[in-house]
Amino acid sequence: MGVEIHDTAIIGKNVELGENVSIGPYTIIYDNVVIGDNTKIEAHCEIGYPTPLAKENRLIIGKNSLIRSKTIIYTGSVIGEKLVTGHRVTIRENSKIGKWVQLGTLVDVQGDCEIGDYVRTNSNIFIGKYTIIKNFVWIFPFVVFTNDPHPPSDYWVGAVVEDYAAIGAGSIILPGVKIGKDSLVGAGSIVTKDVPEGKVVIGSPARVVGSVENIKHRETGEPVYPWRRRLHRGYPEEIVKKWKEEFRNE
Amino acid sequence: MGVEIHDTAIIGKNVELGENVSIGPYTIIYDNVVIGDNTKIEAHCEIGYPTPLAKENRLIIGKNSLIRSKTIIYTGSVIGEKLVTGHRVTIRENSKIGKWVQLGTLVDVQGDCEIGDYVRTNSNIFIGKYTIIKNFVWIFPFVVFTNDPHPPSDYWVGAVVEDYAAIGAGSIILPGVKIGKDSLVGAGSIVTKDVPEGKVVIGSPARVVGSVENIKHRETGEPVYPWRRRLHRGYPEEIVKKWKEEFRNE
Amino acid sequence: MGVEIHDTAIIGKNVELGENVSIGPYTIIYDNVVIGDNTKIEAHCEIGYPTPLAKENRLIIGKNSLIRSKTIIYTGSVIGEKLVTGHRVTIRENSKIGKWVQLGTLVDVQGDCEIGDYVRTNSNIFIGKYTIIKNFVWIFPFVVFTNDPHPPSDYWVGAVVEDYAAIGAGSIILPGVKIGKDSLVGAGSIVTKDVPEGKVVIGSPARVVGSVENIKHRETGEPVYPWRRRLHRGYPEEIVKKWKEEFRNE
Repeated sequence: MGVEIHDTAIIGKNVELGENVSIGPYTIIYDNVVIGDNTKIEAHCEIGYPTPLAKENRLIIGKNSLIRSKTIIYTGSVIGEKLVTGHRVTIRENSKIGKWVQLGTLVDVQGDCEIGDYVRTNSNIFIGKYTIIKNFVWIFPFVVFTNDPHPPSDYWVGAVVEDYAAIGAGSIILPGVKIGKDSLVGAGSIVTKDVPEGKVVIGSPARVVGSVENIKHRETGEPVYPWRRRLHRGYPEEIVKKWKEEFRNE
Repeated sequence: MGVEIHDTAIIGKNVELGENVSIGPYTIIYDNVVIGDNTKIEAHCEIGYPTPLAKENRLIIGKNSLIRSKTIIYTGSVIGEKLVTGHRVTIRENSKIGKWVQLGTLVDVQGDCEIGDYVRTNSNIFIGKYTIIKNFVWIFPFVVFTNDPHPPSDYWVGAVVEDYAAIGAGSIILPGVKIGKDSLVGAGSIVTKDVPEGKVVIGSPARVVGSVENIKHRETGEPVYPWRRRLHRGYPEEIVKKWKEEFRNE
Repeated sequence: MGVEIHDTAIIGKNVELGENVSIGPYTIIYDNVVIGDNTKIEAHCEIGYPTPLAKENRLIIGKNSLIRSKTIIYTGSVIGEKLVTGHRVTIRENSKIGKWVQLGTLVDVQGDCEIGDYVRTNSNIFIGKYTIIKNFVWIFPFVVFTNDPHPPSDYWVGAVVEDYAAIGAGSIILPGVKIGKDSLVGAGSIVTKDVPEGKVVIGSPARVVGSVENIKHRETGEPVYPWRRRLHRGYPEEIVKKWKEEFRNE
């Protein structure tokens, strides 16, 4: 039940490793890092990267996490259990990340962000400072969250994404935009205005084109949104049970 | 004629290295990897990265390849001769990649893809699972191939790109779209419908604006497409000979 | 006042390190590299990466620079003092980069580029070969500079960005386009034509929608452009003084 640290890993001061933690080759753990039980840090990572911008000089990563190779996580953040990263993820300082979050390859969390529970992203997302992403959100590749209404400036306004929203590939979210619960942003949209709950937006600039309830599955013709009525893979049983109840009368 | 393995490289079990293979500093070769003659793997790479998603726990990389530094290639793929990658490329499991393929810096092949022969890409392309890219295709930076018509779902439909097509920078290809032979997708297009053979599409959403034959060179006024009538650099002699024959009556 | 080279760093031949230079763990300095005083090269970098495409087989990095971890810089470039890179930056051969330049995480400078003084970029910019970026330019995340009017070809025409221009997130700049002084490109624009001095463009394709002077701050209602009338953080005192003089009669 001990930890497994590769000979070539470099471990800083004041590092607390839980049971069964493993640290891969050529990985650097900087000072003041706390890593929960059963978490695996792969090769070529940097964990607890120091920065004067961190409000607190400590990084906490929850238990049962998998940090894939070449990932960099700054000090000053708190991350819940069961984080899974792709390769080459960057997470900067002062971020609060919930539990069961999955971040794809090359995702770039710029710091001072809030990411809720059960959020899943695909590759190469840019999450600008002060972005707030709530629970069960899905984000597809190459989505960019901006935060500066008068670029360049020091006046930053993060976007807010409500529960269960899904944001299609290559979309750009303008500063301070609110993306409503259960909504769907089509691929390649430039989102300049708030997206109402349960609506579909698309285009440059993005416009409302309908409600998610009206989208039918290409093959089966069945309703596909809100997506939790049909996509249950990888979520905890008690949550899936609630979702099934929510849609049982259909 | 021996192999050259840097002192700091880590080599797994059941690794077969051809003649003149070289392995750079801080690179990790995982188990069950076969690397062809004269192939160079540079620094900070991970080759044969293990995953339970691999249908076969083996990675084959062809001879005369150049894997630039910080590249990650998963187990479960078969790659032909003369692969050239840029830095930080990721190739996931169960992909079939032909010969003489060039993948630019930061290209992210998500797995279960097919890439033909002589395909060339620029930097930072996202190739979603189940994408099929045929031969002699060119893909420019920041192109995204999506695969989920009802995001998020488990129902994936890859795009198909036919021979000699060229896809401009920053374009997004929607799930299941077919991009015809010899066609041209303008930069920044959102491609929602099939692109007919030899046509030019552009815009958000992309629309047909003409035929490639009608495009003249900015300076010379000569026809420029299909591109193989004029661009021969780096292709094998016998192929260039065929191309010259195809257009010799003009 | 000596240099500090981590035990695991690999240093090539003919490397000149200034006073107080530090080289991080697992970093490789290739041959013929000159690094100015007080410059810090972090972990997992490759500096002076060799290429036959370099016109001169030497790399010069100015003093007081910070090269963040996992950055790759090719031989053949000359970089002024006070360069700051994010993580995983790539700078290829034959580039001239001025002083006080900041390049965000994952920025990809393709080589044969010119970047002036005091240029600042955010994450994940693609700067195609032969792009010219003048002084005090700001570039936001996921901007792509293309260079090939007839893709694929060997006929490359770089874009030119004049002083003080700001280019919004996710914009794509077409080959040879000139972006005028003090202009503003809105997020997600596809810039197909020259942008006149002091104008705002937006859309796909981008069109002029007004002059920067008419943009008021969301909260204060004050004019916000040219941005140097209000944003002074991090620039040298003598420059800020000139800017204040320029706008003192308002």
